Amino acid sequence: MTIISFIKKPTLLLDENKAKRNLDLLCKKLNEQDIEFRPHFKTHQSAEIGEWFSERGIVKITVSSVEMAEYFADAGWEDILIAFPVNILEMEAISNLARRSTLSLLVEELDSIIYLDKKLDSTVGLWIKVDVGAGRTGIPWGELDKIESLAQAIQASQHLKLSGLLTHAGHTYRANGREAVQQIYLESLQRLLRIKDHLQSKGLREIKISVGDTPSSSFVEKFGEIDEFRPGNFIFYDVQQYQAGVCKLEDIAVAVACPLAARHLERQEAVIYGGAIHLSKDYFHLEDGTSAYGLVLAEGPGGWDTKNVLGYVKSLSQEHGIIKFFDGKIAGLEIGDILCVLPAHSCLTVQAMRDYVTLDGEVIPTLNSK
Amino acid sequence: MTIISFIKKPTLLLDENKAKRNLDLLCKKLNEQDIEFRPHFKTHQSAEIGEWFSERGIVKITVSSVEMAEYFADAGWEDILIAFPVNILEMEAISNLARRSTLSLLVEELDSIIYLDKKLDSTVGLWIKVDVGAGRTGIPWGELDKIESLAQAIQASQHLKLSGLLTHAGHTYRANGREAVQQIYLESLQRLLRIKDHLQSKGLREIKISVGDTPSSSFVEKFGEIDEFRPGNFIFYDVQQYQAGVCKLEDIAVAVACPLAARHLERQEAVIYGGAIHLSKDYFHLEDGTSAYGLVLAEGPGGWDTKNVLGYVKSLSQEHGIIKFFDGKIAGLEIGDILCVLPAHSCLTVQAMRDYVTLDGEVIPTLNSK
Repeated sequence: MTIISFIKKPTLLLDENKAKRNLDLLCKKLNEQDIEFRPHFKTHQSAEIGEWFSERGIVKITVSSVEMAEYFADAGWEDILIAFPVNILEMEAISNLARRSTLSLLVEELDSIIYLDKKLDSTVGLWIKVDVGAGRTGIPWGELDKIESLAQAIQASQHLKLSGLLTHAGHTYRANGREAVQQIYLESLQRLLRIKDHLQSKGLREIKISVGDTPSSSFVEKFGEIDEFRPGNFIFYDVQQYQAGVCKLEDIAVAVACPLAARHLERQEAVIYGGAIHLSKDYFHLEDGTSAYGLVLAEGPGGWDTKNVLGYVKSLSQEHGIIKFFDGKIAGLEIGDILCVLPAHSCLTVQAMRDYVTLDGEVIPTLNSK
Repeated sequence: MTIISFIKKPTLLLDENKAKRNLDLLCKKLNEQDIEFRPHFKTHQSAEIGEWFSERGIVKITVSSVEMAEYFADAGWEDILIAFPVNILEMEAISNLARRSTLSLLVEELDSIIYLDKKLDSTVGLWIKVDVGAGRTGIPWGELDKIESLAQAIQASQHLKLSGLLTHAGHTYRANGREAVQQIYLESLQRLLRIKDHLQSKGLREIKISVGDTPSSSFVEKFGEIDEFRPGNFIFYDVQQYQAGVCKLEDIAVAVACPLAARHLERQEAVIYGGAIHLSKDYFHLEDGTSAYGLVLAEGPGGWDTKNVLGYVKSLSQEHGIIKFFDGKIAGLEIGDILCVLPAHSCLTVQAMRDYVTLDGEVIPTLNSK
């Protein structure tokens, strides 16, 4: 009997061995280069999975919300970075966190710095968010004067400490393969180092550099003059990362096990119980450009069988998924069979599913568990 | 002080008056035509909101999962249809529900019928799911023999009762305006009536017809020879429905209130705390074809101001939303201000947010509340 035989409704399966292997590989790479690993915990959102990191000597973490910081502080983490432009409306919770943790925050507005310094009664570290080209958040890398003015304001403050420059090179997720990602990484690093030089020339010292995205964690071999690395997704990966060549299909550590509810043999399709509320509506593109919401695998010894890709999730409603099977792969399937869906984007799938079940049948809760 | 001044993080606001107005309008329309209203509760997923329906005399409901059926049975609902091709792996829960409720299920496979009859020890109603053209689930409408064979199998069973023919004309959501939706509705109804005639000619009596989708609920005036109507989204509507002309902007009854975290004046954009885990990644298209994840409104007296559309949600990360403002609309906004985002697809946003807060500040939980 494998775990599959116990499943009755959409269930987020976690292959613990794969996740730990992904983790060990990156730990080794960063250790060898003496770079601090500050993993992003927004992907797994689980205190129990967090322990796998502390067992490997990791002491600093990244989160994406105040709520997540509180959850991991409760779980014993002491050095927490909230990697989101600070939301000043949550000042009270931030102050409480700052009293009990080594807390650092992200800023890109002078108004935030002024507000924080006025309201805080204990020290927090501030990272200045730099946009190195992704175009989402942060001060554009060329705006040296603006970045300097923020750094000077932090330096002159009472409760704030300048941690350094932080970026998320989110454009690596859209890049075309290994060399393109390496190119973005190098270019981003040069831009950050130029800013660091500028700040140092103005008397601002101890400027650290924090970067982190999963494509770079896989494709870049030598990280160069950075202090911290903060990827999150690498622990599980997903089909978006697989399609981008960042990981192998065998590295993907989570799958949603879904019951087959109805077959449509004439169009080589089936309906699964597993929809947008389980997988999320994030997608990837098949080689021919078709959008797909997951890759469908048969169950295999102790989990799912990466050698037996049956098809893909063609469309999603709230609770339904429609599977399009590859030639002949629907043959032999019956209602009540379980199909394993590798998600397009594991972070959003974990958020939606709330709990993991390991291949040994252990339930692992998350911040979002009921 | 309005509710907006109490908001600290992404919050799902519910304008109770708008939702009740939407509900009253459809109740009136269906009452006048003597059609049973069996609303789909997957949109609101809340026992408390369910009471608004029972106060209006509604006694039959639709849900999309066994878990949701259990939740609403616990809340006192006695006649429940699970409108999803039956998942035989949940047989035990289904049997328990059948013992305490008037339960009906959806089938499109003979194997499901055989399995159910073998396992059940009390009666359930079965609706045969017909695909009238949406191409998602159900037996294609032209396959009269197959539909008849299922109906005969139900008739011949011990624990199953043939309720009738059920369809969800999901292609109305992709249709181009009022006349196109009316056309689909009429065509679907003709297809169902043809099947009903066929079944009656074979001695199968008391075949009811159950249909239901939100575009038809708004655009169709005379529903014709149907027995039940099952829309869900109409209670809140959303920007997808607004863009399709199904509702007015003022009819949308939910919005996610999001703190403004950082401004990018040079590109007329801002970062809000409010991302894919709050809004879902469902989207609509602006007039020029751009994808957008929500429409951004200023706060207004007692809620949001439909006369002051500021821009749209251009992109979403896990917790970040990037707002693109219309010309000049970013002027005067500061960090910590609240922006109200009308969601692309309210059903998925409600699922993600879990709790509502009414404009009076009352918290309304759902099935998914922690």
